[in-house]
Order: sequence, then structure tokens, then C-alpha cells
Amino acid sequence: MNHLVEKTTNIQAIYQGRIIDLQIEDVLLPNGETSKREVVKHPGAVGIIPITSEGKLVMVRQYRKALEKVIVEIPAGKLDHQEEPIACAKRELQEETGYVSNSMDFVVSFYTSPGFANEIIHIYVAGGLEKKEMALDEDEFLDVIEVSIEEAEEMIQNQIIHDAKTIYAVQYMQLKLAKKE
Amino acid sequence: MNHLVEKTTNIQAIYQGRIIDLQIEDVLLPNGETSKREVVKHPGAVGIIPITSEGKLVMVRQYRKALEKVIVEIPAGKLDHQEEPIACAKRELQEETGYVSNSMDFVVSFYTSPGFANEIIHIYVAGGLEKKEMALDEDEFLDVIEVSIEEAEEMIQNQIIHDAKTIYAVQYMQLKLAKKE
Repeated sequence: MNHLVEKTTNIQAIYQGRIIDLQIEDVLLPNGETSKREVVKHPGAVGIIPITSEGKLVMVRQYRKALEKVIVEIPAGKLDHQEEPIACAKRELQEETGYVSNSMDFVVSFYTSPGFANEIIHIYVAGGLEKKEMALDEDEFLDVIEVSIEEAEEMIQNQIIHDAKTIYAVQYMQLKLAKKE
Repeated sequence: MNHLVEKTTNIQAIYQGRIIDLQIEDVLLPNGETSKREVVKHPGAVGIIPITSEGKLVMVRQYRKALEKVIVEIPAGKLDHQEEPIACAKRELQEETGYVSNSMDFVVSFYTSPGFANEIIHIYVAGGLEKKEMALDEDEFLDVIEVSIEEAEEMIQNQIIHDAKTIYAVQYMQLKLAKKE
């Protein structure tokens, strides 16, 4: 794959923030020319597909400043420093929804925006849910809702569900059901 | 939804780049407290699911600087200024793969990283493919490959396919096949 690789010749730190850092990288292209790449560094995240005993999806409704819009998403959150993804998934599920799960299984991981960011999200499916206490971050506000797969499909049509990980989660459930039939 | 909305009280521009801008927004939270949000602005993008007459997916293998890794993705690209997503999808499909399509249909749109970026990606499925000339950007290097759904599933397992839009695309194909059976 050497005919595709870009070599870094310089890194300029632009911003170091609470959630993301931004840097500009000078690169040597495969043809010997040079270019610049804008790279957002992110600590990584988890997303959880929590399924109730009735087969409903537990989701959170929240305001997303970047979108200036309220959307419905699967519970998710970013990794704390050196936190294992599975530990993060259990923590975020309880913090955001109050649920603890006795069966949390890894599904897949994916980069969300490979063109400019290194954010990776690890997806888990959670069953055996038991309701305990929620514990939101101090600047976090959300509603917890439980929806059927049919309702979730309609929410995708209406762009109430409108982000990659949640649309993945709904499709994951649909595929699981389709394979059973 | 007013109990969730955050009001902007100030915007500080940090960086204006070639593909992304970064700004810090001061916000008034629903409880009257204040916080800061790091927001990456992106022009939006398209992703195309090109299906050959043999039912294979046309994909591109490329190096992603943000990930420091070569991955396989569906053809994609960012919107030019005021460009319609469908026009962008036709343009990027031909530029990256050489294929033109006589049937390009909208599938879904989704935000990739709602926690910190406004990037939205519009997904199209493209059939009736005819091979013409490729026209890559001058700093773009990639290989075009055609893979079966089974091969694509294996590439997900091996993290060769490793980004949200492409995993969505493979799942979309699987779901289409599962519904047919």
C-alpha cells in the first residue's frame, strides 16, 4: 500500500481543547508533491444499543450544539483517559439512562469522519437491563425514551434520528429481525 | 424541547481552513448555567453505494491521514460551494471510480459526529454503471476495487472497512438481500 501512504513532514498545533485538538500536518504525497491535512484529534467514544425485554430500543433525546438541533440518539459518550471501551459503555449507559446491563457485547467499531478526524466509536449491544439511578454530567441535559423498531424507522424518515451511530443501530436491529424470520 | 436547548451567547473563531473551520461557542444551558462547546464546521459530503450488474460494490482504497491508515471506503467527497448533493454524488462517483450511473437514488442522510461537528453526509445508491474516465484531485491517490457482499463483511471483521458510511453501506446491502429472501 506504499503507493498510497502520505508521510508527515511537520505538525502545527492549532488548538487544544476539552474534547478535541486541531492540528495541521504537512505531508509528502505518494507522487513527491506536498500538501496540508487538517486533523481533528478525539479521544474515541462508545455507543450502546440497549434493548429492553420487550425488544424496544432505549434512546436519549438531546440538544446538539454543533447541529443547533434536538435529535434522538443511542446512549453514547467519550472515553475517559485510559478507560477501556467496555467500562465506558457500562458507565455511559447508566449515567445517561439509569440502566445497568448484565450482558454487554461488542458489535463493531468505526471511524466517524475519516476525512478530517480520528474519532473512533465502539458499539456494544446491551441486554438484561435493570433500572438504577442516572448520573448526568453537569452540562448534560436529556430525556430518556424507549421506542419500537417501527417507531425508530419512522424517526429516521422524519430526521429525528439523524446521526451515523444511531442509524447504524436501527439497521443492526432490523437485520437481526430479518435474519430471524 | 425548550428544556433541552442551549442558547449561544458568544462565538470565537479559532481557525478557518480548507475543509473545516473551528469555533468555540459560549452557551447558556437550560438550567441557567454557562458552558463552552467546541464546534467543527464542515461543508457537508456525499457517499455513493455503486452496485455493478453482478451485485458487487465498487469501493476505493485510500490512505487517511487522520487515521494514519489505508482503509477501503465507498466513494465519497465533500460538497463544493452551493453544490446540490445529487450533483456532487454524480461528480464524485466519476472522479473517484470512472463510473457514471443512469440511476442514482437518495437513501438517507446522517450527521457523522454530532458531539463536535456539523458534517452531514448524504448517501445515494447508484446502479446502471458505465465505465468512463477517472479525474482525481491533484492530492488524491486511490485504488478502485469491486467486492462481493461476503468479501465486504470479511473486510469489516478485519477492520479494512472501518468507517461509518461504508459499514452503513454494507449493512444496507445485507438488509436489501435479507428482505428479498
